[in-house]
Parts: sequence; C-alpha cells; structure tokens
Amino acid sequence: MLKVAVAGASGYTGGELLRLLALHPYVKVVAVTSEKSSGKPITQLFPSLSRFYDLTLEPLSSGIVAGDADFVFMALPHGTSASPVSEFVKMGKMVVDLSADFRLKDPLVYEEWYGVKHTAAPLLQSAVYGLPELYRSRIKGAALVANPGCYPTSAILGIAPLMKHGLHNGGKIIIDAKSAISGAGRSPSLAFHYPEANEGMEAYKVGTHRHIPEIEQVLSDISGSTVRACFVPHIIPANRGLLSTSYVPSDFKGGAADIAALYREFYSGEAFVRVLDAGSQPNIREVRGSNFCDIGVAIDKRNGYIIVTSAIDNLVKGASGAAIQNMNLMKGFEETAGLMYPGLFP
Amino acid sequence: MLKVAVAGASGYTGGELLRLLALHPYVKVVAVTSEKSSGKPITQLFPSLSRFYDLTLEPLSSGIVAGDADFVFMALPHGTSASPVSEFVKMGKMVVDLSADFRLKDPLVYEEWYGVKHTAAPLLQSAVYGLPELYRSRIKGAALVANPGCYPTSAILGIAPLMKHGLHNGGKIIIDAKSAISGAGRSPSLAFHYPEANEGMEAYKVGTHRHIPEIEQVLSDISGSTVRACFVPHIIPANRGLLSTSYVPSDFKGGAADIAALYREFYSGEAFVRVLDAGSQPNIREVRGSNFCDIGVAIDKRNGYIIVTSAIDNLVKGASGAAIQNMNLMKGFEETAGLMYPGLFP
Amino acid sequence: MLKVAVAGASGYTGGELLRLLALHPYVKVVAVTSEKSSGKPITQLFPSLSRFYDLTLEPLSSGIVAGDADFVFMALPHGTSASPVSEFVKMGKMVVDLSADFRLKDPLVYEEWYGVKHTAAPLLQSAVYGLPELYRSRIKGAALVANPGCYPTSAILGIAPLMKHGLHNGGKIIIDAKSAISGAGRSPSLAFHYPEANEGMEAYKVGTHRHIPEIEQVLSDISGSTVRACFVPHIIPANRGLLSTSYVPSDFKGGAADIAALYREFYSGEAFVRVLDAGSQPNIREVRGSNFCDIGVAIDKRNGYIIVTSAIDNLVKGASGAAIQNMNLMKGFEETAGLMYPGLFP
Amino acid sequence: MLKVAVAGASGYTGGELLRLLALHPYVKVVAVTSEKSSGKPITQLFPSLSRFYDLTLEPLSSGIVAGDADFVFMALPHGTSASPVSEFVKMGKMVVDLSADFRLKDPLVYEEWYGVKHTAAPLLQSAVYGLPELYRSRIKGAALVANPGCYPTSAILGIAPLMKHGLHNGGKIIIDAKSAISGAGRSPSLAFHYPEANEGMEAYKVGTHRHIPEIEQVLSDISGSTVRACFVPHIIPANRGLLSTSYVPSDFKGGAADIAALYREFYSGEAFVRVLDAGSQPNIREVRGSNFCDIGVAIDKRNGYIIVTSAIDNLVKGASGAAIQNMNLMKGFEETAGLMYPGLFP
Repeated sequence: MLKVAVAGASGYTGGELLRLLALHPYVKVVAVTSEKSSGKPITQLFPSLSRFYDLTLEPLSSGIVAGDADFVFMALPHGTSASPVSEFVKMGKMVVDLSADFRLKDPLVYEEWYGVKHTAAPLLQSAVYGLPELYRSRIKGAALVANPGCYPTSAILGIAPLMKHGLHNGGKIIIDAKSAISGAGRSPSLAFHYPEANEGMEAYKVGTHRHIPEIEQVLSDISGSTVRACFVPHIIPANRGLLSTSYVPSDFKGGAADIAALYREFYSGEAFVRVLDAGSQPNIREVRGSNFCDIGVAIDKRNGYIIVTSAIDNLVKGASGAAIQNMNLMKGFEETAGLMYPGLFP
Repeated sequence: MLKVAVAGASGYTGGELLRLLALHPYVKVVAVTSEKSSGKPITQLFPSLSRFYDLTLEPLSSGIVAGDADFVFMALPHGTSASPVSEFVKMGKMVVDLSADFRLKDPLVYEEWYGVKHTAAPLLQSAVYGLPELYRSRIKGAALVANPGCYPTSAILGIAPLMKHGLHNGGKIIIDAKSAISGAGRSPSLAFHYPEANEGMEAYKVGTHRHIPEIEQVLSDISGSTVRACFVPHIIPANRGLLSTSYVPSDFKGGAADIAALYREFYSGEAFVRVLDAGSQPNIREVRGSNFCDIGVAIDKRNGYIIVTSAIDNLVKGASGAAIQNMNLMKGFEETAGLMYPGLFP
Repeated sequence: MLKVAVAGASGYTGGELLRLLALHPYVKVVAVTSEKSSGKPITQLFPSLSRFYDLTLEPLSSGIVAGDADFVFMALPHGTSASPVSEFVKMGKMVVDLSADFRLKDPLVYEEWYGVKHTAAPLLQSAVYGLPELYRSRIKGAALVANPGCYPTSAILGIAPLMKHGLHNGGKIIIDAKSAISGAGRSPSLAFHYPEANEGMEAYKVGTHRHIPEIEQVLSDISGSTVRACFVPHIIPANRGLLSTSYVPSDFKGGAADIAALYREFYSGEAFVRVLDAGSQPNIREVRGSNFCDIGVAIDKRNGYIIVTSAIDNLVKGASGAAIQNMNLMKGFEETAGLMYPGLFP
Repeated sequence: MLKVAVAGASGYTGGELLRLLALHPYVKVVAVTSEKSSGKPITQLFPSLSRFYDLTLEPLSSGIVAGDADFVFMALPHGTSASPVSEFVKMGKMVVDLSADFRLKDPLVYEEWYGVKHTAAPLLQSAVYGLPELYRSRIKGAALVANPGCYPTSAILGIAPLMKHGLHNGGKIIIDAKSAISGAGRSPSLAFHYPEANEGMEAYKVGTHRHIPEIEQVLSDISGSTVRACFVPHIIPANRGLLSTSYVPSDFKGGAADIAALYREFYSGEAFVRVLDAGSQPNIREVRGSNFCDIGVAIDKRNGYIIVTSAIDNLVKGASGAAIQNMNLMKGFEETAGLMYPGLFP
C-alpha cells in the first residue's frame, strides 16, 4: 500500500481526496494536515468520513508528512504551496499539487496573474500539467504534477479536439463557464451564506479570472500557435458541478454528428470522457460525485461557431479525482483505480 | 377602474399578472380564463392569492372576457393566441399579448421559427413590440402590444446602448443566457421534476431557440443594419431569475467606467433599469419579484469584447411586469403604477 | 408621515423592515443604524433597495435616531436592545423591539434562558407582547411592544384556538418546527455556508431553544393555567418560511372539519390568518414574502391528538411584517397598511 | 457472480440499485425491466450509468428475468408486486421486494391501509422483514425479504434501543418525519415540479400515512406489547435525505450521555449505524449517497421525553442500499459488500 498524505485536508478538495482515497485499493492515507484545525480528528471536520478514518489533523510543519508519507497531495491555497512542494520533491517524494503554483510554465505570467513572485521557479519546467487525456505520457514519468484548475479542465477537454483537428479558424474563442458553489471553497463568506447564494446567480471576475492564462497556455500548446480566450465564470446555486459553454469560431462545413464522431475518436480509450450524441447536451447532474467529463457538441452555422458544452464535477474531475488519476499514472497503477464510480443521481 | 381580463391565468405568467394586478391602483380584474382548469376558483390554483381574488376560471370561449373586460392580457401558448387576439382587437379592446405571436414583423420568419403559418398576419404591422425603454412612444398609441420574450428583454436591454452608440464593431455577438426554471412554465415534466432539476444545469436548444429572430429583429432595428447573434440558453436550479451574458465585439478604447457612464445616460429617466458601477455584476437575487433590470458592464481588452451582464426576474420584467408596464403606457397611467416594488431579498 | 428609524438595519429583519416600509403609505424612514457597517449607504448592503432609499448607516450612538425619529424599530441582537430601548421610551418615542429582550414578563425567566441579567427589568411590565391576533387591544395603547419570535408566532397562532376553546386535555404539547435559513441571521458561518446547508437538514437546540419560555408564557396566559411544551426546531434548506407542526393532546370527539370551522370563527375578521379546509395542509411557498399565517388542522383519533400545521414567512409575519402590524396598531393606522400583499409564488 | 435482475428499474430506487450493484464484487446484473420504458437502453433513463451497463429494459412479462436471474430485486409499485414475487419464489429464486406488499404480517391490516386485498397472503408468514439490525438471523435463512419503508427504517432504528431497554414508559410516541423529494418517486407531478417544490415545505397524509402500521408492527414486536405511534411526514426541498424526530415518553432519570452509551452498545458491531455523542444531532448531508443511519439522542426532562433524531439517505439505507444489505445476508456474502462508501459531502 502506498503511504499517502493529504496536506490541506480541511477544505472541500481535501475532504474529497479522503472520500475517494478511502476506497482506493493501493493506497493508505497516513497523514492529514491543517493549520487552523490542527489537533482535531478529521472526522470532526467531515462526519461523513466516520468509520473510514482515524486520523488527527496536524500542522504541515510538524514533519509528520515528511516522515510518514511517500506520496503527497497538496491542497493548500495558491502561493503557499510552492515552498513545501519543492522540499518534498527534494526529499524524493512524489507530489500532486492541487494549487495553481505549478501550472504556468512562465514565472512572469504567474507573477502577472497571481501578484506574487514565484518561490520555486526552477521547478516549473519539470512540473507536468496533469491533464491525463492530453499529457498522459509525461505524467507517467513525473515526480511533480500540477493538477489543473476546475475551469481549465472542463474548457480544455471541451475544446482540445477542435484544436488538434484544426477546426478552429483562429477567431476569438469565448468560454462562458458556470460553477457550483463548492468551487469557491469552504471558508464562510457573505456571498456564499445560504440565503444570499440560494436563488442567486452572477458573473464574477469578468475577463480577469486567474484560470485564463492556464487555459491559453494549454490551448496554445496543443494547437501549436498562440490562442487567446475570453473567459467569464459564473456562480450558480448548486453544491457540485461545472459547465463550460465554449464558442469556437470555425469554418467547418459538416454537421454536429460529424463533430461528435470526431470527438468520439479523439477520446476513444478514455475511461472518463463521455461524448454525447449530437443534439444532446450534458447536465451536471449526470457527473455528480464522479470523475467523468461529459461533452456535447453543436454547430451554429448561421454564425460560424462550433459550440461545445462540457460538464464535470468540480471537486472530482475538476480537482481531487483528477489528482488521484494523476497519482495512478505516476505510480503505475491502473489509471481508473479508485475512481470508476457512477455519478450520484438524483 | 379599468376592467381587465387575464386569459391563460393558470400558468406562472398568468399568476404573476394576478399577483401584481391585485395591488394596481387603477385596475380591477373581472375575468380569468383557463381551458384545463375551467370551473375552479383561481385561488385553488394559486392559494397565495387567497384574500385577493374571488374569481372562477372560465374557458376563453365562454365570452365572459369579451363581455366584461376592456383590456385583455393574453398569456396563452404560442400559436393559440393570434386568433383570439385579432377578435379582441376587432371588438375594440386593448390587448397585451404575452405569447410570441405578434413579436416578429415578418410572417415568413415567424413561420420559419415557429413551424406554423401565422393566422393573423395583417395585424403584425400594427402590433407594437412592447419594450418601453426602446419603443415607449409607439406603445403609447397602440391597441395591440406584443410583450417581449424573457431572454430578448434581458439581452436587448443589455446590448442596446452599445448599438445606439456605435460601439459594436460589426463582429459576431454572443449571448449566453441562464434562466431559472419558472421560465419553462408550469406543466410538470421529467426534466423539471424536482430531483432531476435540483443540482442540475444544462444548455438547451443551442443556437436554435425561438427567441433568436426576436433578438436579431430588435438589435437590427436599433442599429440600423442587420445584426446576427449566437444565442445559447441554459437552465439553472432556481425559481426566478434570468441572467444574460452578452459578448459584443468592440474597438472601444475607453474603460469600463466610461461604458457605465454611457449606460447611465442612456437609461437616465428609466424607472426600471439600474446600471451598476463598473466592476460590479448584477445578481438575479436583487431583482427577484421586481420589475427591475440590473446591468453590469466590463471590458475584455485582451480580446476586444465589451461584456454586459443583465439580470431580470423572468416572470416580472421578463413577462408580467413588462405587460403591466405596457398597459400603463397604453392607457396613459403613470408607467410605474402597480410596479414599483423592491425585490424580495433574501 | 411618521418619521421612523430602523436600528440594526444591516441584518435580514432590518432589510425586510425597509423593504416593507418603502411602500408604507404613512411612514418615512429617516434613519438606519449599524455598528459594523456604519458609513455605508444602505443600498450597498441591500442592492435590491436601490431606487427606494438614499440613507447612510450610522452607529446607534450617533444620536441621529434620537433626534430624527418619532418611532423606532429595534432589530438588534438579544441582550443589546434593552438599554437603548429604555432610553427611547424615556424620550417619549414609540418602540417596537424585535429582539427577545421584552418578551418575557419575568426577569428571572429571562435570566435563566438568556444567561444574562435583564438591564431594564422595570419596563417589562409595561411592554406588550405584540401578537395582534391575541393582544390587539393592549397593543393599541402601548408605547413599547415586544415583537414575538418567529417560532412562537407560528406555534401560538396554530394552538391558541384550541386553548381558548378548552380542547387541550392538559397532556404534553409537542411542537416540531422547521425554519428556513434566513431565520439564523445574516452573519456567515460554516453551518450556513451554502454547500454545507444546501441538501442538509438537522434538528438543533433540542428541548433547549430560547423560544420555549415565550411559547409557554403565552399559551399559559390564554389558557389560564400553566402550559408546558416540548419544542424542537429544525433547519431546512430554503431561504424563507417556517412551519410548525403542533401535536395537542385532546379528547375532542368531532372531526377535522369541526376544528377548521372553530378556527375560522376564532380568526374571523383577522386579515392575516387564513384557515385551510380540513384535509389541506399549508405550504410555506404560499406565504413567501407575505404577512399571512396559513393554518391546517387534522385529527389523529387513534392517538388522541389534534395536529395543527401553521406556516409563516419567518421574516414577515415572523418578524418585520408583524412589527409593522404592531406599529399600525400603536399609531392608529389601518392594521393592514403597507402589509396587504400576496405571497411571491413561485 | 450472482446473476441479478432489477424489476422496475426506471424509477429512483431501481436506478439506485443499479448505481450500487455496478460496484458490487459478487454480482452481475443480467436483466432490467420496465413496462413504460421497455425497449430503451437503461443508460438512456440514467445517463449517469453510462460506461457501467449495456442493458435494455424489457417488460417483466418477457420472461427474461425468470430465465436469466437467480436473484430478483422487485422495485415495483405497491400492489403490483405480490403476484410476480410469488411466482419467482415458486421458481426457487431469491427475492428482495422493495414494495410494501410483504411488510405487514396481517393481510387484513394490509387491506385496511392499502385498500386492496392481498393477492399472495400465504407468503406473508414466510416473508422476513428486512431490517438487518433487528432481524439479521431470520434474513440469513430467508428466500423472500420485504424491504422496509424509508420512514420506518429511520424511525425504528431511532427508537428500537429504547423499546428493548424498557425506557419507553408506554405513553404515546410521536414521530415527526421530514423527507427529501426523491422519496416521492420519479413520476412528474405538479406538487414536485421544481418551482412549486423548491422553497416549499408541507406536511402530508397527517396521521394517515401507510407506513404507520409498519412502524407499529415492528415496535410492538420488539417491545413485546402493542405500541401506537402518531406519525406525520413532511416534504422538504432536497433531493435525498430523511430525518425522523421521535418523541418517546420516558421516566428515565439519567442524562443524554447515558442514552448515547446505551445506543452505542446496542448498535456495537453494526457497520451502518453511527451513534453521535450526546449534544450532537445528525444532518442528512452526512449520509448522502451512503448506507449509514446516523442517530442523535437528547432528553427533554421538563416534559419527560427522550428525543431521538435519525438520518438516512432515503434511497440507500431507506431503500436500495438496505435491499443489497439484505441480499448480502441472504446469500452469505459479507454484509457490507458493495455498500461501504462514505457519504457524498458536500
């Protein structure tokens, strides 16, 4: 059994890692960390995990992670992850970092969007962007994997086949994304106080969200030329789920069924991507609690757009499930180990 | 007191008309119709209206509307409204039609999108499109007003100032809209059965929704040239509220504050449009139950888009509130009579 | 116009007072207070009130309330209200206190349940408990009215007719109550962070909630003997609404229709109580945003219980609407002034 | 691998059986039936099951179940299950019936509450009531198990320890239960149309629900004397979850911690019952998607009640999870096989 630690275990992505790892056939969680909740049993923060864990939260600085674990999931806030990650890598531990700290290749771009200097810039080049459907072979050999953001995962999986097949005509791509509220984290705030958020919906960080350079970096990488995307995220009143509606300018003359066929081929062999028939649109309810990304395609011929909608559970394929999928690849386990569950519907 | 009838009173827009008209200072509702629920007291279908109405539903064919009412709100399904409307107009009654039957000027366009021949085509030219903020003077003299669709109302109010000021550079406009579920009507269906719809979200009628020609007709009219829009609606898990995120290609060199100032001026004097400061985005929760349209503006200079988010309550400013606003104008009442309420928050 | 102040205007009951007072025909709000948000425009805290108020929040200590207002609504937390209330009363201002500070007649009972000594005990005797349906005549002459708690309002209105008619056989009364989340106030906390509260439900303060002595005091008063109630509140995932299910032991031999008739007679003339036919149960959705209390009655003959379900909007009839109803009585306005609106459905 | 059929697979309990059985280590689902949706792939009705099943729905009468399966889960409506069940039993197949048809021992009681004559009354005596925590040894030898109702499961697990220990003083028991909407099934209806049900809550079938005789039968059985319960169910706006608040009259002199200890001992060794510390109350969010029943205890000494709150997922421990737990016992598998998952939180 692989000895695993979850650093930053008191938040939603931490809890989701523990939910999934509880059932993983080759893993034993040996340490969980939290600065604020240090000293508490993990089941006090997540009563739903009672009967599955008998661990107490400790501060990351306690050294318990360093001592006991061979593999570390880092679920810390952006900016606080880079330093401990580089220490763990030096110790020879494998790391999946769920923060944004190792996603961007260029430390100047990181600095521009995150407003702080990167504290472990030399590691950026060896860190692998952990989207298995696109970078599987690199992930297999990696010691450090940067787990993608939730918005980028859904948007990139939705758009990538078009880029690879040259169906994007170079025009501006627009991504209008809608996220459930668990994506905003577990810290209480007025905006997400139940009576404010329920029956509410709004756009935020219009054109300025930090996931933009991440999306552009990957789309540029797979298309071979610079790609720009206009990205607007929205918050909708639900616990889990993320839907990206991507508008890709295209001169494609065929029909939606042709696009669907092309997507099916592109993702053939992928365990966690389900391409819907043309005319169907994915619903976040079908992926709830699961590691699937469901994709639907349509064409607006009047305006020259291919429109792709892609749905994930932001906490699973958008965070913790993807992290485990990366671990499976890094460690040579079956890629689906501990992840092949249907969604919880209804 | 103006004697008013509500035809099609058993659905949500009918109920919303009754909720608002109960408090209107110059109106008395004298008749309510429903084919399916004929014979039932209206308060059986809407217990929330108990103590406000003592009316029984009758079929439209009963003649009660024709006999008793001087003003008729038609809240029937598309396609079934045109014939009775033309009869009422002939009788000299004033009509606001909440269906789509009189929104499109060209009967061929109607036929193309609605799949049936228009049964009262000659009336189309005299029918006025009931968006007071754009067509107030025409509404004042009208006998028949076509009440706008909910999606068009929010999208057009959001985009119109840009068209009027020539800030749209002619590129493709994208409108990504999100509607609460009351917009889908009151008939039960599996898709909107609570456990299916709650915690769910999806796009539908991608690029094919019938509100498209309506949006394009109005945007073309106010810009003076043919405008095309790529429109994708989504359903979100909430009772009320509609948010349109409109991406308008623009070469504008100024900042978002300039756009906000321009919107403020454009809508100065408008009772029901509230323009937010640049940097703020409207939330559907702020307009719940009210006749307001809240608008936020932003610029994505990297991609050359002005991005406008506009929020309404789909049942009020998106339907029944707008219909009453139109009635007020047609009858010469103050435009805000019976409509000036704050939203119900939380 | 009566010059009114709302102290503690940044919370939900404060906001709800402002929403309702905006439309009150005889009132002008001249001052709003908040300690934490002092200096901010009230519309920043409640954007839904934009176009209705142009007031800035000030600390209570600023003296603005004392200077400008003739009538004060106190929406402060329990324990902090008693002192300023007694000052205002001394100044000759009329006060409705929405806190619990003047609800209990016996300062020792207050101390027992609230854990602090009462700081204005001499005022307790002259303060009137503001449930108009039971204490209308006393409210009319009062300078200080203690606005009832939300749970007591729904429970007492549901049970009172049975007590008055001697249909309670003296056995233990059980009240199982379910409240929407706005009842917990506007301060963010983990328990009411959206992803925790949504799809959640639990009991809390089982048998120990502070509304217990309030319920018992009133039921004892109207029955003429000591009444005890076992009370358990629950939180359900909704914004507004409170439903009490009351189990009253009874030897009544008649049917539910008889009970309904008795309730109808008891509440005849009451503008805001709607008694449903036997066999119907009230739903919180029918009273949303309104000042109504809807009541349904049933009999479980097998077990000897009359079971009453009573639904209110916790922020309106359960707080701010009731406060305005009290003000109307205290000032001699029509009791329904500014309050007679249908619920917002759906 | 045990060859299993799910009859009535198009509803929520059917879908939940399939969700859980997809991961069961010793089971292969070989047939699924539906009368209405016959001919459709099961994944069309449950897209969330895509990648897990390649089965087509057939009518029960097709004989496929009879031919292919050795074990049958019957998820048909009450009244329609008895006849096919008795046929399957005759064929030597093992059956778990999720309907109410074999829960009540006395066919006259069945007739009284369900309004129809029982069509397989002779089987009633050999059918075992499938609550493993109380009847494990009988289930192990059974060919036909009647799966308990969702309300009875939560109420009985909550109350049973008190009955067994004689802590109920014989007074009237009150059970106030709150269920999420999936408990009402998958057929669309106005009451559960999203905009009606969302932000709504009501009691229903007050004192007349069909689960009453089932609860009384079991409580009487384990206490050794006739027990009566006053039972009122409510519907709350959530997808999954059921909470019963049970008021049990008691003369117990100890504290809540003593009760909790007693419950812990009673349920020691039980994999799926989690007893909370005194002072804590279970929340349905902690059991979502899991087979756990979480129980909290409190004492209201003022009134002489022990108050127990018990939370389950109505579709899992309240239906399909319990059915699989029963199958495990009937077939001699580990009792937890395919069932030991943490809840999906948030």
